[in-house]
Amino acid sequence: MKKHNFYAGPSILPEFTKEKTAEAVINFAGTGLSVMEVSHRSKEFVAVMDEAMALVKELLHVPEGYSVLFLQGGASLQFLMVPYNLMGKKAAYLNTGAWSSKAIKEAKLFGEVVEVASSKDANFNYIPKGFDVPDDVDYLHITSNNTIFGTELLKEPEVNVPLVADMSSDIFSHPIDVAKYNLIYAGAQKNLGPSGATLVIVKDDALGKVERQIPTMLNYQTHINAGSMFNTPATLPVFASLQTLRWLKENGGVEAMEKVNIEKANILYSELDRNKLFVPTVANPEDRSRMNVTFVMAPDYAELEKDFLDFATSKGMVGIKGHRSVGGFRASIYNAMPVESVKALVEAMQDFEKNK
Amino acid sequence: MKKHNFYAGPSILPEFTKEKTAEAVINFAGTGLSVMEVSHRSKEFVAVMDEAMALVKELLHVPEGYSVLFLQGGASLQFLMVPYNLMGKKAAYLNTGAWSSKAIKEAKLFGEVVEVASSKDANFNYIPKGFDVPDDVDYLHITSNNTIFGTELLKEPEVNVPLVADMSSDIFSHPIDVAKYNLIYAGAQKNLGPSGATLVIVKDDALGKVERQIPTMLNYQTHINAGSMFNTPATLPVFASLQTLRWLKENGGVEAMEKVNIEKANILYSELDRNKLFVPTVANPEDRSRMNVTFVMAPDYAELEKDFLDFATSKGMVGIKGHRSVGGFRASIYNAMPVESVKALVEAMQDFEKNK
Repeated sequence: MKKHNFYAGPSILPEFTKEKTAEAVINFAGTGLSVMEVSHRSKEFVAVMDEAMALVKELLHVPEGYSVLFLQGGASLQFLMVPYNLMGKKAAYLNTGAWSSKAIKEAKLFGEVVEVASSKDANFNYIPKGFDVPDDVDYLHITSNNTIFGTELLKEPEVNVPLVADMSSDIFSHPIDVAKYNLIYAGAQKNLGPSGATLVIVKDDALGKVERQIPTMLNYQTHINAGSMFNTPATLPVFASLQTLRWLKENGGVEAMEKVNIEKANILYSELDRNKLFVPTVANPEDRSRMNVTFVMAPDYAELEKDFLDFATSKGMVGIKGHRSVGGFRASIYNAMPVESVKALVEAMQDFEKNK
Repeated sequence: MKKHNFYAGPSILPEFTKEKTAEAVINFAGTGLSVMEVSHRSKEFVAVMDEAMALVKELLHVPEGYSVLFLQGGASLQFLMVPYNLMGKKAAYLNTGAWSSKAIKEAKLFGEVVEVASSKDANFNYIPKGFDVPDDVDYLHITSNNTIFGTELLKEPEVNVPLVADMSSDIFSHPIDVAKYNLIYAGAQKNLGPSGATLVIVKDDALGKVERQIPTMLNYQTHINAGSMFNTPATLPVFASLQTLRWLKENGGVEAMEKVNIEKANILYSELDRNKLFVPTVANPEDRSRMNVTFVMAPDYAELEKDFLDFATSKGMVGIKGHRSVGGFRASIYNAMPVESVKALVEAMQDFEKNK
């Protein structure tokens, strides 16, 4: 039976990425050796890293004056690298969920954190708006998509300070205006590749302004100077990420992705708004994530939750159980998720409704 | 033509590791999904992590009271995590090369570093002996194998303080007495798997003794508490590492590896001591690395360096160019390197000698 992969991350990747990676695990770039066993300083792997950095710049229209890095440690390591490098005495954070909260916790080790707004009062089921940001902060940190709670900031907040964003779960899903950011970071394991690679886009002249001593590996400048080769990068995850970047370009880039992502999200949210058994957890349409669609059973049908999970599983749906802090269900419909899989889930919801 | 992979790292891996990884990149554990696109919290991947941690304990005979972790960031991140977590005010470091020097540089950000000895005076071509270690240091840090300079500490120094070791390039190549260590770390990309995974073995009660605040991701206790799942681990590199651990067990473990590694090293060093064209850079046999065999042209034949590199390359040797700080050649003969490849290199050296 065909599986429909709705995992929140690590999550569905293009067939192209899987095929090319499997090939290179056996024979990389005609070397007769695996991509896993070739020096990161070989000309073959240097070409991989160079192309990956160039494609990120091309696809996201990264302006001059920014560097693209492939690091390790995921967003969780960025939570501390960002303030280590960019926070003088004070920074602002918008709290939209579990990941924002973790970023705030680390930032507090480095200075004063101004939490400009929070949706914690409603279990993070909306994006706060109309908040004020002090002029004297070094940046405003946002989490552009909240994987757990199913909300997304599809447009940057209009503020007078540079932005820093955790885009782990929606990077490459729609165009962004990189010029508004001092730094963007993203764990690879949603729209890019396997876990183990971390993408960073940093404005060069935002660096070098803090007084604290930064350990070498935590200093973005170290990695800029070495072209992400200061130490051995995660070569296999970077190779796989490059395949996805090539697939993205071949398929029309982030502009084309946005169109399909809107289509997929509309199909699923329309059904959730129609089907009497289910309720989306995010009420405001403009806050609804196009990547992670969270929903619960309607109050009158709460006892059917386990039944629906079993039914959907029997139809090939994988990974739709909701995060424990929200409950219910979560359908993650990243770039690589075909419209057909979204339609299969909707069909399962309709079939289940008919039988009740 | 058969390639003989002498890269220093990322480096040769068992065929078994490559085959199993290529399979799982397409279809992991019968899920019909790639190991790259399955949640790290799925029961299938949790089983991978659990087995990998258990096999490390089994193969290295890790005593009770130690935790095994799979982290990210390589040895370079450990250079700072070690003092962040383990150094109160003072620690001792043995300086045996470039990697030791980098570890020392990071430790100096956290307190007083006592460099107990250094072989820098002779371009690190020997292992210092007979040094004193102050009683009031928290640990003595050693680099057990020096990839660049071709030296190895095959036995732990006899000291009265706990050891901490960077074993990136010789872990699993011979038995070790883990009880002498407070912490052992190793980037995976030599004897374990692809780059992107970092193995740490830490004595639980060595932690929690420093007063400084440690950022969450840099605190070993975070990862112990979460079974290496605090954040998304590098799932594909960990999966591949597990395959090598299985291969190690199937092939007699580190005890069997040691025998073959001694045999391979003897074959190569014997030829270097015999062949008039070449000179090993490490004179003292007991300091010679069994993992990285470094050699240069004999003074009378210095002009033949490029010729030999071309000749060896024409015979299928890959990655034998020496590191720029030593020059000449380096043949890395890790666990997965078959005796046949070492013999092929020796044959190339002999053929080259006959024609001169």
